[in-house]
Amino acid sequence: MTGSETASQSEDCPVPDLERMTLAEKAGQLVGAFVGSMGDVDLNVDDAAALVRDAGVGTIAAFGIGVSTYHDPERVAEIANRLQRVALEETRHGIPLLLPVDAVHGHAYVDGATVFPHGLGVAATRNPALARTAGEITAAEMRATGATLNYGPTCDVARDPRWGRTFETYGESPLLCGTFARETVRGLESDEGSPRVAATAKHFPAYGDPAGGEDAAAVDRSPSTIHQLFVPPFVEAIDAGASVVMPCYNSIDGEPAHGSRRYLTELLRERLGFDGPVASDWGGIDHLHEDHRVTATQRDSARTTIEAGLDLISIGREEYAAHVRDLVESGELSEERLDEAVARILALKASLGLFEDPYVDVETVRTTIGSSAHRAAALRAARESQTLLENDGVLPLSADVDSILVAGPNAASLRNQYGGWSVQEPDPASGSTILDGLETRAGDELTVRYEQGATLRERRDLDAAADAAADADVAVVAVGEGWYYHEFGPRELVGPTGSFPTRSQLELPPAQRDLLEAVHETGTPLVVVAIAGRPLSLSWSAANADALLYSYYPGSEGGEAIADVLFGNYNPSGRLPISVPRSADDLLTTFNHFAHPTPIGADEHPDTYDPLYEFGHGESYTEFVCSDLSVADSRIGPAESIAASITVENVGDRPGDRSLDFFLRDEVSSRVRPVCEHVGFARVSLAPGESTTAEVTIPNDALAVTDSSGRTAVEPGTFELSCEGCSATVTVESSAERR
Amino acid sequence: MTGSETASQSEDCPVPDLERMTLAEKAGQLVGAFVGSMGDVDLNVDDAAALVRDAGVGTIAAFGIGVSTYHDPERVAEIANRLQRVALEETRHGIPLLLPVDAVHGHAYVDGATVFPHGLGVAATRNPALARTAGEITAAEMRATGATLNYGPTCDVARDPRWGRTFETYGESPLLCGTFARETVRGLESDEGSPRVAATAKHFPAYGDPAGGEDAAAVDRSPSTIHQLFVPPFVEAIDAGASVVMPCYNSIDGEPAHGSRRYLTELLRERLGFDGPVASDWGGIDHLHEDHRVTATQRDSARTTIEAGLDLISIGREEYAAHVRDLVESGELSEERLDEAVARILALKASLGLFEDPYVDVETVRTTIGSSAHRAAALRAARESQTLLENDGVLPLSADVDSILVAGPNAASLRNQYGGWSVQEPDPASGSTILDGLETRAGDELTVRYEQGATLRERRDLDAAADAAADADVAVVAVGEGWYYHEFGPRELVGPTGSFPTRSQLELPPAQRDLLEAVHETGTPLVVVAIAGRPLSLSWSAANADALLYSYYPGSEGGEAIADVLFGNYNPSGRLPISVPRSADDLLTTFNHFAHPTPIGADEHPDTYDPLYEFGHGESYTEFVCSDLSVADSRIGPAESIAASITVENVGDRPGDRSLDFFLRDEVSSRVRPVCEHVGFARVSLAPGESTTAEVTIPNDALAVTDSSGRTAVEPGTFELSCEGCSATVTVESSAERR
Repeated sequence: MTGSETASQSEDCPVPDLERMTLAEKAGQLVGAFVGSMGDVDLNVDDAAALVRDAGVGTIAAFGIGVSTYHDPERVAEIANRLQRVALEETRHGIPLLLPVDAVHGHAYVDGATVFPHGLGVAATRNPALARTAGEITAAEMRATGATLNYGPTCDVARDPRWGRTFETYGESPLLCGTFARETVRGLESDEGSPRVAATAKHFPAYGDPAGGEDAAAVDRSPSTIHQLFVPPFVEAIDAGASVVMPCYNSIDGEPAHGSRRYLTELLRERLGFDGPVASDWGGIDHLHEDHRVTATQRDSARTTIEAGLDLISIGREEYAAHVRDLVESGELSEERLDEAVARILALKASLGLFEDPYVDVETVRTTIGSSAHRAAALRAARESQTLLENDGVLPLSADVDSILVAGPNAASLRNQYGGWSVQEPDPASGSTILDGLETRAGDELTVRYEQGATLRERRDLDAAADAAADADVAVVAVGEGWYYHEFGPRELVGPTGSFPTRSQLELPPAQRDLLEAVHETGTPLVVVAIAGRPLSLSWSAANADALLYSYYPGSEGGEAIADVLFGNYNPSGRLPISVPRSADDLLTTFNHFAHPTPIGADEHPDTYDPLYEFGHGESYTEFVCSDLSVADSRIGPAESIAASITVENVGDRPGDRSLDFFLRDEVSSRVRPVCEHVGFARVSLAPGESTTAEVTIPNDALAVTDSSGRTAVEPGTFELSCEGCSATVTVESSAERR
Repeated sequence: MTGSETASQSEDCPVPDLERMTLAEKAGQLVGAFVGSMGDVDLNVDDAAALVRDAGVGTIAAFGIGVSTYHDPERVAEIANRLQRVALEETRHGIPLLLPVDAVHGHAYVDGATVFPHGLGVAATRNPALARTAGEITAAEMRATGATLNYGPTCDVARDPRWGRTFETYGESPLLCGTFARETVRGLESDEGSPRVAATAKHFPAYGDPAGGEDAAAVDRSPSTIHQLFVPPFVEAIDAGASVVMPCYNSIDGEPAHGSRRYLTELLRERLGFDGPVASDWGGIDHLHEDHRVTATQRDSARTTIEAGLDLISIGREEYAAHVRDLVESGELSEERLDEAVARILALKASLGLFEDPYVDVETVRTTIGSSAHRAAALRAARESQTLLENDGVLPLSADVDSILVAGPNAASLRNQYGGWSVQEPDPASGSTILDGLETRAGDELTVRYEQGATLRERRDLDAAADAAADADVAVVAVGEGWYYHEFGPRELVGPTGSFPTRSQLELPPAQRDLLEAVHETGTPLVVVAIAGRPLSLSWSAANADALLYSYYPGSEGGEAIADVLFGNYNPSGRLPISVPRSADDLLTTFNHFAHPTPIGADEHPDTYDPLYEFGHGESYTEFVCSDLSVADSRIGPAESIAASITVENVGDRPGDRSLDFFLRDEVSSRVRPVCEHVGFARVSLAPGESTTAEVTIPNDALAVTDSSGRTAVEPGTFELSCEGCSATVTVESSAERR
């Protein structure tokens, strides 16, 4: 089915027939614009309206994005309505607009919105239902403001933790990335409860391993790695119904993804069967002539990318509309290709119901944005994401604790707790900081005192913090990173380029380390809470703190979630979705590295995988014992899945949740595979003394070997399945065809 | 021409006809053995002789290798003669043996041999004639002991300086790697002066960028990077006449090179036209079943590698001979393939003249090994390799200097100065340490005092070193790394796994830093000499030392060469063949990284290439001024080269040599290219006030774009050529065909 057929299939839908559209009208549908300032372009709402009216621009990112200055819910809804009115009433065909937003972890560029944990935290929950709910709530809050297209979810697998977009990902396991992207898509695209929005599977096909961890640098990896590691999450997102795919900024094997027919047409359309619009990432087309230097002019970049398979030039404005017209008129671009792209965009607008009614009710926006039901869901996600890396018994805080010192740059900063892709100055009422959470949960008997001690990069009054620590029964110091995106910007918020956080530095900066040491020296028990976008190398805390809680960017409800964990109202259950390296010196540090020789003997090589904390690490206040990993059938056919189960018992004295990660090792295969692959996970809730059997299905795909062209095959042979120190063996018997 | 034709073409050469050889005899020629201990295999000379006699083994590595205990020149020559006698007199066809050695930088596993600088130092000279001479001398010293096959040169491009084999390479520029490998091959394979030896182009096709810098880990790079960066030096070495090619241990794109038909047959034989034997690296075949896990058994590994294109199973012994026989008998391996491999090996032996006379004259070995003429050549190479990174004027040492303190772990250690792939306990008479060199050159008026101060990893008497520094006019502290190979082993020599040097650490260990700081605190001018295999991140020295000289592993004559530089007898001229990173945190740090976008603005990204010292950095005691970079023709055809010239003037007051590096940038190309490529170099000698014009030819190949399949094409467009801050533009006009 082509997009064109989709667009014209409904008879009472006023989708214009392409034959009635002029070349200029079609070119207008192909391009978008934004409201705000970027580079030397500065556009206000009037400008955007004029672009819709005069150039037929079909997509406007007016709010819900970093460059826009509009964050008030009612104001943005009004803008949405105004722009749609221009499109419907002041253009010949009355084609409604797509209004895209960066609702990466909730509609977080709108004041008061529900802000979920960022990707890493969501993946730490090992609870895909939370991602689905988050997607549904994000869609509801988006639609309340008139936004209809979300630039998410991120399907990128993070392989270099120096990268400034690590926090947006679901970590280093392709399985986690695929599962959480899929559930997010399902939530965003679900019509249950509120109208769906279009989800964007981004950034195709591989963004998560830029050279040196530098944002948008070349992903110089082998084809089999691209296919087996980076592409599978996109398959999940597309199969779940993602409406849009966005290419990555990077070049791969010499080809910028935005201009690559290999990736956008041969792989995405012909192999993966995706038939929706491919929308450019913002600067992704200009990069071809400006940075990658594979084209000489902007016009060439337009032709190259559209021919490669791109349909929507997200911020192309009148400039690109002119290029498109000119290219078609000169015969360099076929009108068929243009029609195909326009049909996909019109079909998307139709499927979102925009031709019926694109307007929103400004009066009721606030009843949806940040509703208590929404925030309760965010609190659940934030709680389940909390990952306890160390605990010598200080947590949960005992009833004997009468006074707490709260310190550190991230103890009282909602902005830092949100992280990038969110409003930079959140309303204090729209969430709770760690200090808020501890004060709220503390009750009257407990004194909570706050001394910041250090900002992210600078010492404050260390003596005051140390004195307060000495007086307290326990010190909670919240360290880590602040608000940033891409390569740790923007500079006016984050500070000079090259100052913490920067890609070469995974350790805390001196100011924060000094604060931790000053508090530690008092002898008062030290609980370190890390709020950070990347897996920081917290070696000092690992060795010296009494407890270390990794909180990722927990979002608006982070403070309450962390307080619940510290006080024991919630038993932590998060597990790392990414390895925490000992230092950036040691990278690459991933559990699923390739098997390889050690020419002078294994005992002469430091371990290939020896992180500070392994993928999957996460402690609890209770103790779980796993046993009896078994498979339903130890000999299976080459098209079968593995049904496995494991017994889990809570042998401690508190109720708790336990997530379980399952790994598979192919004993012999025709191509070199990772030493092990993450193939399944489960989550159980157990009362003290309770036991259960967790069941997982390891899909047949997980057994397959991937070749350089992305073809997969399950080969006969033996596989070792392992979980929590237990293992089981499965043998795949030769297929009938093989015999 | 097939190997078989080669082997039978000479009528008076007693090369046996393959038809007269039994399957067992042929299998024997396919395998080799070693003398020494490795893993659980322990073979003495008698064992080796028995393997030749009883199993028909055709290749014995008996000395000149790490695992052998024989290092005395006469003794090893006797062993060579004895083994050849068994082969000639006690086997049916009397086929002589190949006797391979690791003569990586001279025949350095033999006592008293001439030891040249390792690869990085040789490349720093930018003087390919030195590599050719080193090859000729190495061949002469090898042949004097009866060795006929050298496991070298290394053609690997170093991309991750953490890697423990960085020092063996010619650095990070494919041009330097190719040029120096080519000249080394020409020297080894030259019949002028002494009979040639067989050179081995290793390790095909890509070893120099293992994941995380871990030796033999997967080289997970894109096909275009493999083809444009790693393969070209092999093309140079093969075109220069390298007799043998050795695969790398790594897997690339899921295929271990040893078992890859794609690399060993399709690329090496069909594309590059190589027709000599492909010889396994030592454990390279066993790794298929033991580590890469792409085969289940040793027998499968034998079949897979031979079918992929491997001819010589270097240490296969009777085990592999049995596998080969069995595979041919069972029909799993064709006898034609076996014959092809055997014919290549016999042709190589014939071409080396071994069928005429494989014996050596034991009486005259010592007149060749380490002769004064050979050592004089090594001294020239060591001198020209010295790379002055910093100098505040303390060098050359002034005539006013009356006393020198010499300190540091590498000041008086011939072993550390040799580096790996050399005897571990060199005879003090076979070379000169820095201390030796300074004492020899000092004359009577100057006092040279030695206090070690620190070993590589441990403090010694720091106070004594500081006191001596305070008393001296200048302190020369020689720091760096010691003897190691592969992953910084062997442990019994280097210390526990994970102690310095280790891949995660490019900084000096604390003991050495403490020594430097203690000396610096005395206020006595500090000259730091780095003897190291890798480009260490010497940030402290860069900021605090009065001079910093990078000496790589300078070999047997290193002490005199360094003394000559310090005293000003030789004006340093070395230029870095590899970038010195600020730290391992910053990797990848190469000058020829790919162009890429910076999505939130270039000013928000730290520089992609911002090393401590750039590729090509190197200072002099005089001053050179470059001007007037010009090209003979600013518009050329697509098959033409660029003839360029630049004027260089010595405006200082000392004679000196200056090397010049030329870089090319393709303004627009169909595929993403590096920001610049190293395309030429030259070296000039100038008296004070003298000026000259240096001319280089940038070969047409350097203009070409490489695609994923390794095909290259020169595209029309503009190129910017640059050298020493000068630049010129060349435009390639469309070819006739393109029009």
